[in-house]
Amino acid sequence: MLFTDIIEKKKIKEELSEEEIQFFIDGFCKGEIPDYQVSALLMAIRLNGMSEKETYYLTKAMTYSGNVVDLSGIRGIKVDKHSTGGVGDKTTIALMPMVASLGAKVAKMSGRALGFCGGTVDKLESIPGYRLDLNEEEVREQVNRIGIALIGQSTELAPADKKIYALRDVTATVDSIPLIASSIMSKKLACGNDVIVLDVKYGNGAFMKDIQSAEELAREMIKIGENAHKRVSACLSSMKQPLGNAVGNALEVKEAIETLKGRGPKDFTELCLISGSVILEKAGLYTREEAYAKLQENIHNGKALEKLREVITAQGGDPRVVDDYSLLPQAKYITELKAETSGYVKDLPAQPIGELSMQLGAGRATKEESIDYAVGIVLNKKIGDYVEKGETLAYIHHDTELKEEWWKRMQNVYVLSDTPVKHEAVVEKVI
Amino acid sequence: MLFTDIIEKKKIKEELSEEEIQFFIDGFCKGEIPDYQVSALLMAIRLNGMSEKETYYLTKAMTYSGNVVDLSGIRGIKVDKHSTGGVGDKTTIALMPMVASLGAKVAKMSGRALGFCGGTVDKLESIPGYRLDLNEEEVREQVNRIGIALIGQSTELAPADKKIYALRDVTATVDSIPLIASSIMSKKLACGNDVIVLDVKYGNGAFMKDIQSAEELAREMIKIGENAHKRVSACLSSMKQPLGNAVGNALEVKEAIETLKGRGPKDFTELCLISGSVILEKAGLYTREEAYAKLQENIHNGKALEKLREVITAQGGDPRVVDDYSLLPQAKYITELKAETSGYVKDLPAQPIGELSMQLGAGRATKEESIDYAVGIVLNKKIGDYVEKGETLAYIHHDTELKEEWWKRMQNVYVLSDTPVKHEAVVEKVI
Repeated sequence: MLFTDIIEKKKIKEELSEEEIQFFIDGFCKGEIPDYQVSALLMAIRLNGMSEKETYYLTKAMTYSGNVVDLSGIRGIKVDKHSTGGVGDKTTIALMPMVASLGAKVAKMSGRALGFCGGTVDKLESIPGYRLDLNEEEVREQVNRIGIALIGQSTELAPADKKIYALRDVTATVDSIPLIASSIMSKKLACGNDVIVLDVKYGNGAFMKDIQSAEELAREMIKIGENAHKRVSACLSSMKQPLGNAVGNALEVKEAIETLKGRGPKDFTELCLISGSVILEKAGLYTREEAYAKLQENIHNGKALEKLREVITAQGGDPRVVDDYSLLPQAKYITELKAETSGYVKDLPAQPIGELSMQLGAGRATKEESIDYAVGIVLNKKIGDYVEKGETLAYIHHDTELKEEWWKRMQNVYVLSDTPVKHEAVVEKVI
Repeated sequence: MLFTDIIEKKKIKEELSEEEIQFFIDGFCKGEIPDYQVSALLMAIRLNGMSEKETYYLTKAMTYSGNVVDLSGIRGIKVDKHSTGGVGDKTTIALMPMVASLGAKVAKMSGRALGFCGGTVDKLESIPGYRLDLNEEEVREQVNRIGIALIGQSTELAPADKKIYALRDVTATVDSIPLIASSIMSKKLACGNDVIVLDVKYGNGAFMKDIQSAEELAREMIKIGENAHKRVSACLSSMKQPLGNAVGNALEVKEAIETLKGRGPKDFTELCLISGSVILEKAGLYTREEAYAKLQENIHNGKALEKLREVITAQGGDPRVVDDYSLLPQAKYITELKAETSGYVKDLPAQPIGELSMQLGAGRATKEESIDYAVGIVLNKKIGDYVEKGETLAYIHHDTELKEEWWKRMQNVYVLSDTPVKHEAVVEKVI
């Protein structure tokens, strides 16, 4: 088989076979196919697309380019969720204990922050003592015992994806639906779960700028999942503004705990309830309506919070953080951002807020940077809220002096309007 | 300027500016832009095309990636021709003396054979003593004195083209009209002539398989030439069968000389007369009709042949070859291919004949191989000719024993038909 023939086929819009796609991934991973040939293929894929079959074969080949986690030792239906990334997205920390409290088995692996999006691993690390590096045996034992483990990735999943992504990043081939879908799904399939519920974000703070492209991506990922005999659903959710109020590691852990106590922000609570009911429905444990009610019930009766406490305890963290937030890292200073005029919040773009939080120290621009778990931004007003002049828009938690330039950018983040602005639902659609 | 932004623009079908294209060529030549980024751009160009402006800017940038020959010291209109390559194409050796005998100035640089297409440099080298490595000063002096020099390339022209071609070859991006056009024209413009007449071949033995794509390529090259303020025309000529009868270096030199004596094959003579009249018309020396008659006249009165004798003499070759072909390299054996049935020649594909000639030793598969100037194939029958069973179809000039496998392939080259087959014109169209 010649790789140039594979490029040629994609160039003239012929469908690639499973063998050809496997040959591509194997050869690229072994270093036998050079980058300059792969980038030509990636551009041909970006411009000519991929069929459902091709996308599945690509995903499959990437999934098996490394280890696939074996969860067969865990009894029950193993569920997973994935968010395409966003600002203030602490969903895993609240949602997974919620669904685990209703019988779904959770062996969840999360990633670290990069760029303006936070990472669940960093958030969990802000809990004193919390261990993220459980091995497969420890995960199996823990999930069989308490139903949930929230860990970091021990080994690299789907290494082919990482290699391909690095090349896409420098060849203007990132924005390809089949390549995005196969990239996400190869890592999800490598986690070995039965149910995967995707949270596909759209809006200025997300990779997908509008709901149409988010839906297209979601449908592509669902098709891959079906081909791989997984139960997959997707929520399309807005990233026009940050999710919830807190942005920053310990601040988000606190907000997730508050949510499990029934005192969370409305949008974030709603996202957890909807995603959770879809997970439980897909797991075959409840109908979606039953699940929604059960999740609300387990918030009110404290069972969901108890599940979080259990997982923190099991993984060596200090479970008292659940009751005493002062045990979480605290920033030295809290500075309020006040409204200079009155009006309705019209715009509150997620990306600049993520970037501002990163600049405070809550995130990292490169892999090597360390993180300040305490700092971040807590929004006091969100889109649709009415603000009186002088009222607090946001609380800035910081450990160093706020630079002039930073402060100026922050002041421009809130866009007010004289006329009322509608509160939008966070989840627009479930597929 | 970021190269990824340039790839991005081409990917979304935006027009690249001259600066962007210059940045690409400069950066690639200096090794600052890696192959894997360039191949993504090449695929985007292959799939999204290039505007007239973009194609011209690319050609210009490639032209000036190396030295551009300065012919300003030569008085008169400097003319050039270019053939997209073919089997039996000895046009330069007959045509350039013809037009030089009528006042056009010829400082012609030619290339070597590679693959199944012959190269003029190898053909001229079969003339004992003939020097191809004249320097710019020698060329200037000689053309001012006798009107013609036929030489090899002293330095590499348009080095960017070579680098890009190497990458196109392994990324399935060869078949792009703007990339082919800019590749050819960058080298032609680097030769510094005023008039360029292109011979764009089509048919099974040419890169362009049909006349429509040949015309598209020709028009693209003419547009580039016009943008560069050159006078450019193109002949579309058939490569359904080899050009003329002789294929092989010394054999083609002999046929070119025969043509200058008025005894050449009909198709080859016709191509020289038409191309020559277009060259002289573009040079502003004659109308096309006058030129055609003048060229015929200079064949009959011996002036064209005399011009070839002059150039051979000037460049150190033995001018007696013009009268005594035995001074050219001679093969040890001549074997006849006889017709096994009677009929009309229907097919005589150029590519296998070129390959068979190469296998005899007349060409080279890699740059390093040496060439046997004596060997080759002389066709005795061409498309449309009637053949009696037992008649000679072709003469094989060889220095080594003919292999069984070779002989079998050669026997399959002629395809005969019971019903009469039309003789087609070699030049279908002049643009």
